[in-house]
Amino acid sequence: MTGNSSGGVQPAICPSASEIATAVRGRSATAEQTVRAALTRVEANEPRVEAWEHLDPRLALEAARRLDRDGANGPLAGVPVGVKDIIDTADQPTANGTIADASRRPTDDATAVARLRRAGAIILGKTVTTELACGASNKTRNPRDLSRTPGGSSSGSAAAIAAGMVPLAVGSQTAGSVIRPGAFCGAWAMKPSYGLIPRTGMLALSHTLDHVGVFGRSAQDLALGIDATSGDDGRDEASAGQLPSRLSAALKEPLGRPRLAFLRTFAWPEMEPACAERFESLAARLGAAPIELGEAFDRAYPVHQTVMFREFSHYLWHYYARDSGRLSDMLRDRLLRGRGIGADAYLTSLAELHRLRARFAGALKGYDAAITPATPGEAPQGLAGTGSRMFCLLWTALGVPAVNVPGLVGATGLPLGLQVIGLRGTDAETLRAAHWIGRELSADPT
Amino acid sequence: MTGNSSGGVQPAICPSASEIATAVRGRSATAEQTVRAALTRVEANEPRVEAWEHLDPRLALEAARRLDRDGANGPLAGVPVGVKDIIDTADQPTANGTIADASRRPTDDATAVARLRRAGAIILGKTVTTELACGASNKTRNPRDLSRTPGGSSSGSAAAIAAGMVPLAVGSQTAGSVIRPGAFCGAWAMKPSYGLIPRTGMLALSHTLDHVGVFGRSAQDLALGIDATSGDDGRDEASAGQLPSRLSAALKEPLGRPRLAFLRTFAWPEMEPACAERFESLAARLGAAPIELGEAFDRAYPVHQTVMFREFSHYLWHYYARDSGRLSDMLRDRLLRGRGIGADAYLTSLAELHRLRARFAGALKGYDAAITPATPGEAPQGLAGTGSRMFCLLWTALGVPAVNVPGLVGATGLPLGLQVIGLRGTDAETLRAAHWIGRELSADPT
Repeated sequence: MTGNSSGGVQPAICPSASEIATAVRGRSATAEQTVRAALTRVEANEPRVEAWEHLDPRLALEAARRLDRDGANGPLAGVPVGVKDIIDTADQPTANGTIADASRRPTDDATAVARLRRAGAIILGKTVTTELACGASNKTRNPRDLSRTPGGSSSGSAAAIAAGMVPLAVGSQTAGSVIRPGAFCGAWAMKPSYGLIPRTGMLALSHTLDHVGVFGRSAQDLALGIDATSGDDGRDEASAGQLPSRLSAALKEPLGRPRLAFLRTFAWPEMEPACAERFESLAARLGAAPIELGEAFDRAYPVHQTVMFREFSHYLWHYYARDSGRLSDMLRDRLLRGRGIGADAYLTSLAELHRLRARFAGALKGYDAAITPATPGEAPQGLAGTGSRMFCLLWTALGVPAVNVPGLVGATGLPLGLQVIGLRGTDAETLRAAHWIGRELSADPT
Repeated sequence: MTGNSSGGVQPAICPSASEIATAVRGRSATAEQTVRAALTRVEANEPRVEAWEHLDPRLALEAARRLDRDGANGPLAGVPVGVKDIIDTADQPTANGTIADASRRPTDDATAVARLRRAGAIILGKTVTTELACGASNKTRNPRDLSRTPGGSSSGSAAAIAAGMVPLAVGSQTAGSVIRPGAFCGAWAMKPSYGLIPRTGMLALSHTLDHVGVFGRSAQDLALGIDATSGDDGRDEASAGQLPSRLSAALKEPLGRPRLAFLRTFAWPEMEPACAERFESLAARLGAAPIELGEAFDRAYPVHQTVMFREFSHYLWHYYARDSGRLSDMLRDRLLRGRGIGADAYLTSLAELHRLRARFAGALKGYDAAITPATPGEAPQGLAGTGSRMFCLLWTALGVPAVNVPGLVGATGLPLGLQVIGLRGTDAETLRAAHWIGRELSADPT
């Protein structure tokens, strides 16, 4: 095995999404060239990383040439993008990570995909997801250490960014499926506020908890990706009334030191001791004040799990009913567990979740954003699991923006996720704070 | 029995909320005077109408004198208001229309009540509700014809307006509980967009469907009441991100003829034939173009009922568990029916409701608002029932603004409800259209 000392691959040098789009719009590069370059970067590492479920170079090159012919002017002109394989593409299969959907060919693009294309992006292919984004892990390996999980369920999207294959990728999060793989792979990743990016055309696991998220090489790339895909689409009710975000513009405004809170949350006892220490000293260095959310938030785990498993079972039961033999043992167990949750238990947890959402709106008074771990430590060994969701699920339940900032490293030199979160609707402030922290970390990454 | 020819009471002459507030702010009347006048008006008709569950003249006069002493300057300065007896008041009982809560004394004001007081309103008392706002009807009689139902569940609020007792009252709607009694009593009534007025401190029947609504003597009075009570309170998650409305300002802008659609909906076959004809000719006269919403909306009735009954049962089961003998047969049946709805059936209907909400967002293109009946006809005879909810439940399910415009009369000379609805969030446009229609009707009410 080649690669660096920790057993990972050498990431390809990948320009940022904004560099690519600027070059293509300025005609100093063609979309065809940027797609060819991306395919070369994929080729270099894909045999060992296996980030892609489906790649169609011919289709991507055709789209690129069409864009070059028509005059590429969008904010993502010529940017090659990876799309999690639970998000529909009209011209490529969407297999949802299960053999049950191996031959599935959607007839329409998901809203996020259609908008990416309109912004000039080229859908390079479909990235690996775990089984139905909530079941067994899949083939993708962590580009930083091939013996470890990349995290999931948006495994391929995070790995494709970390291996330098593409500058932008799309994923989804219902518990920790964007932030966790972002953290383990050391990629910028953002799950914006609930409903900001419509979920139309994405496999539905949970109306209450599903979010579309974005991976990139920088805060600016996340901004470009979210700006292009956000806003009410008139089809996903969660997006009703949402305006398209203007995160790119927000990042261009002068950046002062944000007022940061430090949130340990109920999951803190799960932190690996060395990582806990690292976080305490980071918080001190960033001037982040430790705050407590109050006891009600300690119940976030059972509340989130009850809502999530009940909705999983509801939305995915047809897979079980059709042929349960095609599902993993793990997913079968999850669906059965969810089916056993009665309507009253579900509604009790849903009401508690609504109360937590309302209460959290007053939780960060005096702060621009908060820092909190993304995971209890570095990526675990092996591909059997995808790691802990304990530091992610609260923010998913609350529907608030969450950003993984790469740059910290753990005891064995692998990425240690740092999460920046904010109030629902303050995506710009949250990403600005994450951007500022990212600069601090790259100046002195210890 | 005295009263007018149709067997109703002679409505007292009640100044509008804005007239009262203007007089009190200008010191040409004191709040004490306006409250005494309201109490006199109540005295005149209450023995026959029975709109009030609880009246405490001493408390109201005390509050009025305090306001006079402190200098009344709010938008509702000195305005006497009736509050449905499922909405908490810290200084008066809140019995939720059930003997099970006969001795209930809340410790806090509901958000709507606290905001009304801050705006200078005087809570005159608590108005009659049906049992837990979803069970057996109650004692209130229709002021237009005492042998008929005033509609429910906000029976007392609507009747108090129609009898001229107060210029403003607050109610709630989960199916048709604001618009229906407004229609039967011939009162201005509005159920604003879902979440615009926080429900904190109001008996919860259904997180998905509960709305606070307002009754008044004019569109302007509705605007004053909603402006004073609307906007995120940081406690009801449905209100998250909602800004206080500015309906009063919107009504002051020049009013042109609105572009109106005419919606018959799935309930149209229930219309009494004479009323159907009246609506057809009214639509023609107002230039309202008949449009169809599409088949998906024909399923609104079972979808709404499944969600509502399941949530009723969840939120109110503790009444059954504590002492089912204190509930009416009707409510016991409803709670048992809801309890029999499984989580999957519930989630199927909830998902369908979400799809309808998203789809409706594109339904009124080219129109400012739509007209539709509020009820199938005039108020039914007797007090055993509160009339049909068929023309109201779709708009409740969609969470869109709905206004009852009084002025039309049915075959026997009683009020015939005309409902104006709009897209969610277009409360100002919807109320402006209703205001314009109200003027047209009063100019020529046939």
